Amino acid sequence: MKSKEDALVQRIVKALTFPDSRPLALGPGDDAALLAPRAGYQTILTSDWFLAGTHFLPGKHPADSVGWKCLARAISDVAAMGGQPKCFLLNLALPGDAKAKSWSPRWLDKFLGGLRRASRRFECVLAGGDTTQRDQILINITVIGEVRANRAVLRSGAKPGELIYVSGKLGGAELGLQLLLKGRSARGGKNPFIQKHLYPPPRIALAQWLADRKLATSMMDLSDGLSTDLPRLCSASRVGAKIFEGKIPTVTLPREKNRHNVDVRSLALNGGDDYELLFTVRPSLARRLPAFKGIPLTCIGEITRQRHLVLVGLAGRSKTLAAGGWDPFRDSR
Amino acid sequence: MKSKEDALVQRIVKALTFPDSRPLALGPGDDAALLAPRAGYQTILTSDWFLAGTHFLPGKHPADSVGWKCLARAISDVAAMGGQPKCFLLNLALPGDAKAKSWSPRWLDKFLGGLRRASRRFECVLAGGDTTQRDQILINITVIGEVRANRAVLRSGAKPGELIYVSGKLGGAELGLQLLLKGRSARGGKNPFIQKHLYPPPRIALAQWLADRKLATSMMDLSDGLSTDLPRLCSASRVGAKIFEGKIPTVTLPREKNRHNVDVRSLALNGGDDYELLFTVRPSLARRLPAFKGIPLTCIGEITRQRHLVLVGLAGRSKTLAAGGWDPFRDSR
Repeated sequence: MKSKEDALVQRIVKALTFPDSRPLALGPGDDAALLAPRAGYQTILTSDWFLAGTHFLPGKHPADSVGWKCLARAISDVAAMGGQPKCFLLNLALPGDAKAKSWSPRWLDKFLGGLRRASRRFECVLAGGDTTQRDQILINITVIGEVRANRAVLRSGAKPGELIYVSGKLGGAELGLQLLLKGRSARGGKNPFIQKHLYPPPRIALAQWLADRKLATSMMDLSDGLSTDLPRLCSASRVGAKIFEGKIPTVTLPREKNRHNVDVRSLALNGGDDYELLFTVRPSLARRLPAFKGIPLTCIGEITRQRHLVLVGLAGRSKTLAAGGWDPFRDSR
Repeated sequence: MKSKEDALVQRIVKALTFPDSRPLALGPGDDAALLAPRAGYQTILTSDWFLAGTHFLPGKHPADSVGWKCLARAISDVAAMGGQPKCFLLNLALPGDAKAKSWSPRWLDKFLGGLRRASRRFECVLAGGDTTQRDQILINITVIGEVRANRAVLRSGAKPGELIYVSGKLGGAELGLQLLLKGRSARGGKNPFIQKHLYPPPRIALAQWLADRKLATSMMDLSDGLSTDLPRLCSASRVGAKIFEGKIPTVTLPREKNRHNVDVRSLALNGGDDYELLFTVRPSLARRLPAFKGIPLTCIGEITRQRHLVLVGLAGRSKTLAAGGWDPFRDSR
């Protein structure tokens, strides 16, 4: 007789198996999975929580988005090293009673559907994981990737005088979250900010381009917001930074639609979940950085020897950059 | 200004760093960790949940044991392939308020202490992970190991006629749990069953010996109980099994201490958390399997072509083996 847990595992494995893809020496189903590493490559390892109530709201976030995003955001950490994702471990806790509010067989199907799309899109296949029963949906994802030896771009490589860049426009995902929380339906229409919040695309190809050509001296992904993440890069590199508020690429809102006077600059500074890249470039290489396949690359400031974080406002006045992004241990947001 | 999350991460990294050990190309602190795989080896990947209320009880299980066991049981999956653990990712969710019942700075210190001891003992170092805030303590551990290419022992290698072995004695950890639940203190004395439940030792060296000498044709670790795990091995190998109740190595209880008439045979069949090895051996090699460094190795039956699971009772009567071990999705235990 098969246990309920074994049955759930089989359902997951079936939903996430692609007949045309066999990158693993041994896939799910044994005590552990086996990966045959490529000669000349290093293995990249990263894990992320994705918890109901903390990282997503079952009533607001479609199951399909939960599936996509839990994998995409862990993949973003592999991308931020300049690497290629290979496989992932899915750790899933679900309510045991199908009548529970946040979970149903239908929820699971849609969740696995979103996860499958991300898995296929980013060529990152299921290797294994663990399932258990819990009153709320808990997800933890480990992604394993690879990068050519000594080509990984770390947070610690920034030097004084180098230019600070970001990809894309910042704050869009946070705006999408605010629209969702104000009652905008996740399904209705194709609001680009809600889409960015629900289905973030990790910048895999861009990061590999920056790493392969040795254009970036340091790099990380923007998951918690520029004002929280830039200090982390600077701390790892033992440097400071001066950035210009007027240079930070914000989202654009038609004035007639900006009824609530959305502060796009504050969103760009403090909004999380964009999964854009933050990286540094030697000034001599800056001319080679116009854009990458339609993704704008914008210089927002420079690295300084003084270990302070300075934000130069629109009127030219400097102040200390205050971390205003996502911190799960902060008492209030 | 450092965020609370960054401060917690630094505390964890500091507690789990060994100055004399540098097996990683890049340790915790960046977007991801980097591991340089050895030529001729495959990478082993496995994850396990360890959740307050499900896998441990904060009021019953000392924090030190929670730290040891969350790592040891994930390492056991690497061992069960015949592999060597290398590093782990720690995913930890903690209550944000230090006044919360189940967590305190002291709890964290003791938890990290147990984790550090297991990390050092099994030569498995911290590579990274993720932290967040939650009302209950949630742990997920990913362990990355290595095994010589084509030497991993899978669940799927058992053939009809081969002998079924288990290491150690079964049911001891389950008995330890029952003693704890009946109010026996985790600290008082050195009850060996409570010790086995709280601080299980994964059978790394034994499993490597079985794999390197090609003694085991199939192998897995006993985490959920023999009656639940043997069917999994048989299913993966597309075979059946006949085991003899009288041959299963049980724990020994002095009769005068067995006041509650503990059924040691039922414990050995259905008790979980032993992390002993279940493996199969060709009959011609069985004479080479007396014991391994004091760990008994016991033949309990044989693999059959018929895909049934048969338990031969003490009186010689055969019946179908019913899965009676741990299943988190079963309605009642």
